[in-house]
Amino acid sequence: MERSGLITELQSIVGERHVLTADEDLLAYAYDGTWYQSRPLAVVLPETTAQVAAIHRVATRERIALTPRAMGSGLSGGSVPLAGSLVLGIMRMNRILEIDEVNAAAVVQPGVVNADLQRAVEARGLFYPPDPSSLKQSAIGGNVAENAGGARCLKYGVTGDYVAALEVVLPAGEIIRTGGKMVKNVTGYNLRALFTGAEGTLGTITEITLRLLPKPRFLKTASAAFERIEDAAATVVAIGSAGLLPTSIELMDRTTMRCVEELQPAGLPLLSEAMLLFAVDGNHEPSLDGDLAEIERIARAHGATAVQVAANAAESEALWNARRAISPALARQRPHKLGEDISVPRSEIVHMIRAVNEIAERNRLTIPIFGHAGDGNLHPNILCDRANPEEMARVKTAAREIFEAAVALGGTLSGEHGIGLLKKQFMELDVGSDALALMRRIKDAVDPLGIMNPGKIFPEPGGPDAFCL
Amino acid sequence: MERSGLITELQSIVGERHVLTADEDLLAYAYDGTWYQSRPLAVVLPETTAQVAAIHRVATRERIALTPRAMGSGLSGGSVPLAGSLVLGIMRMNRILEIDEVNAAAVVQPGVVNADLQRAVEARGLFYPPDPSSLKQSAIGGNVAENAGGARCLKYGVTGDYVAALEVVLPAGEIIRTGGKMVKNVTGYNLRALFTGAEGTLGTITEITLRLLPKPRFLKTASAAFERIEDAAATVVAIGSAGLLPTSIELMDRTTMRCVEELQPAGLPLLSEAMLLFAVDGNHEPSLDGDLAEIERIARAHGATAVQVAANAAESEALWNARRAISPALARQRPHKLGEDISVPRSEIVHMIRAVNEIAERNRLTIPIFGHAGDGNLHPNILCDRANPEEMARVKTAAREIFEAAVALGGTLSGEHGIGLLKKQFMELDVGSDALALMRRIKDAVDPLGIMNPGKIFPEPGGPDAFCL
Repeated sequence: MERSGLITELQSIVGERHVLTADEDLLAYAYDGTWYQSRPLAVVLPETTAQVAAIHRVATRERIALTPRAMGSGLSGGSVPLAGSLVLGIMRMNRILEIDEVNAAAVVQPGVVNADLQRAVEARGLFYPPDPSSLKQSAIGGNVAENAGGARCLKYGVTGDYVAALEVVLPAGEIIRTGGKMVKNVTGYNLRALFTGAEGTLGTITEITLRLLPKPRFLKTASAAFERIEDAAATVVAIGSAGLLPTSIELMDRTTMRCVEELQPAGLPLLSEAMLLFAVDGNHEPSLDGDLAEIERIARAHGATAVQVAANAAESEALWNARRAISPALARQRPHKLGEDISVPRSEIVHMIRAVNEIAERNRLTIPIFGHAGDGNLHPNILCDRANPEEMARVKTAAREIFEAAVALGGTLSGEHGIGLLKKQFMELDVGSDALALMRRIKDAVDPLGIMNPGKIFPEPGGPDAFCL
Repeated sequence: MERSGLITELQSIVGERHVLTADEDLLAYAYDGTWYQSRPLAVVLPETTAQVAAIHRVATRERIALTPRAMGSGLSGGSVPLAGSLVLGIMRMNRILEIDEVNAAAVVQPGVVNADLQRAVEARGLFYPPDPSSLKQSAIGGNVAENAGGARCLKYGVTGDYVAALEVVLPAGEIIRTGGKMVKNVTGYNLRALFTGAEGTLGTITEITLRLLPKPRFLKTASAAFERIEDAAATVVAIGSAGLLPTSIELMDRTTMRCVEELQPAGLPLLSEAMLLFAVDGNHEPSLDGDLAEIERIARAHGATAVQVAANAAESEALWNARRAISPALARQRPHKLGEDISVPRSEIVHMIRAVNEIAERNRLTIPIFGHAGDGNLHPNILCDRANPEEMARVKTAAREIFEAAVALGGTLSGEHGIGLLKKQFMELDVGSDALALMRRIKDAVDPLGIMNPGKIFPEPGGPDAFCL
């Protein structure tokens, strides 16, 4: 089929103005939150599940690749359309369909922005825990496709832990529903978990039912500064061993703190090597105060030089704003940054930090470390300039060494960003050849024509590596 | 290959005395916790993952079916070997390999009994929440294969929520490891979730890494009696709406209470139509007392005639022993019982109870109802005599009507027992033909020869129904 005939057919499905073909539009949909760019064949913006299914049927008939995309704020290249792919942009499907207070569930379209959902459910006394740092931009559909995390995962788990049901359009256009509002469901294979985190490679998610919790009545924040980053890591382990389960334990190293202070001064302890940020939440204020007192005692016993409990919501919010400013703050330092997302058992955090610092030194690179230390999910960010091939060669070496170190420590490539384009050539290193072959057999069974988001997750032997695109 | 040659080859893998072929042995492995029985070709009892893999390779080469089996206490027929199947019994693989206090994880072989694991981790101040009523008999391998639940799911979720990593022998004998001790892991497809609850149809699980929690310092129990069962159901909904998240809310109807009292007198409120049993747990005793006071207020506002808080651990344990006595107590009433496991959104509990009572009356059957009311997972048990074909025809009708009612209310066939043989002919009714076809494509991709636990989960058109075996 000619491209013009295809465009006409897509227009007949979604309406003329919802198929974008102008150069500047294609450019706007060529990106995500990484440094990749790749212009799509066209962009099609459906408004209903029936339209999504019709687009899938056309794509199946014509063997055209589809890349589902929500807000495009992902950090692994998952929504970047590889050449020849149609972008299936779902941001017109952005309604909260239901907030069911009795069953503590929300039914949403995939284009609902995370923060908007949080606000809406909190107004009803409910709580949606997953809070990626991108929460003011990123949409639930993308959060589900990448199985996004956030700062509250230590206590509350990741997006997938809240996915109660999905409506999915399969590659050839069949519409399935899997799961429901019930709490327990073990009927057949767990398709919800298979599609969550599949990064659009198995189908397009068109509706999501999310489990909600009662909103905790109180949230308290504290911070602690450490002269040695190893002491911060040891504090994390000791808090877990003491039987405490804080909502969050976030880490910033000195480089990270300096970058944040440059962008938006927050009084971070720049003379310290690291800082931990703690949150605890619950319904009973005295027990939270007790938990914070125990955290303070443990931190001081492990060498914390200053521990401060935020006196009120404003002080607490200032600390969390500093935390959320990290990514933009680091992005200002050098032309580019490669943000990694390795996750290790908490016993290995100290070894992982040491490994990253050695890798930075050996490769003469600046690699600030921050992240969700409480759950072992760290974000070493390699600062660089893609125009400098000699530096990029060192970046490539450092990235591989970071992944190898994480896997050697019993960890994994990605705790919350997904694999996408950025980490696909390291998949076998992590999961092994037999598990990777099994994933590929599942992919082929669900998407035999290979039209769903090609080029993601699975390495291509001899293909371009993640740094070339 | 002749059967004798096969037996010799299996003996060479696991040792002569670990291959069972005597009639009485085959009979001992023909059962699970349902009424099915089907003798296997032989029983093979490996001790290592390498032996399991060798057995898989023989089965693949000879196209012999394998039925993985742990304690055989399942309630859906999942581990009953259909004719011609080898039982792959994993109960010799019964060691707790590691309790990792720093990372709050336990690494176990599949034959470890649930209660033994609970005791072992609690001795270290840790906590493994999933607690199927069979916990003193059932093994973790079976719990994972069926994604078992229990009374604490309301607050803590099901077995699958604690599976951090699996070692699995794939049908053809490849050994894969998926997951690890890290808290967050979104690398590739979620194979952990796919194998959990797959009922042995995709591979044999040979090692399990479980996530643990800090053990809550306090557990408190209360009970409430209701003149009308509808008031008990309304109380469950009101507790959720009040933002409370108890550990457990269990329901017994009058018939259930009477049967328990006959077996082991516990002072249950036999004049009431229903009773709710509540547990709350946590580290801060005053807040638990506060929660129980709020639960009592809500229960009384919804018509509870008596609310009692257990004064001590002994009183509490007596109530939970009564709860765990339900299954044996019901089993004594009539020659057989068909235990169902439907799960509905909590808003629908009252409608589900009403539907079951109408179905019982219409079909002239006794169907006591009990279960995990807090999470909507109910166990209507149809009491019957399989020697009476006329009664069994009514049992079949009633079972179908119960499933239809659950699905019509937005619920599902199984909340924690799995599909196995018992519910396979209702799969399409629940998940729909397209999702069922997708599950079958996944099954075929993972197990192309169809040797893993055949006859389970997937309905066979024209095949025998679940009541004939």
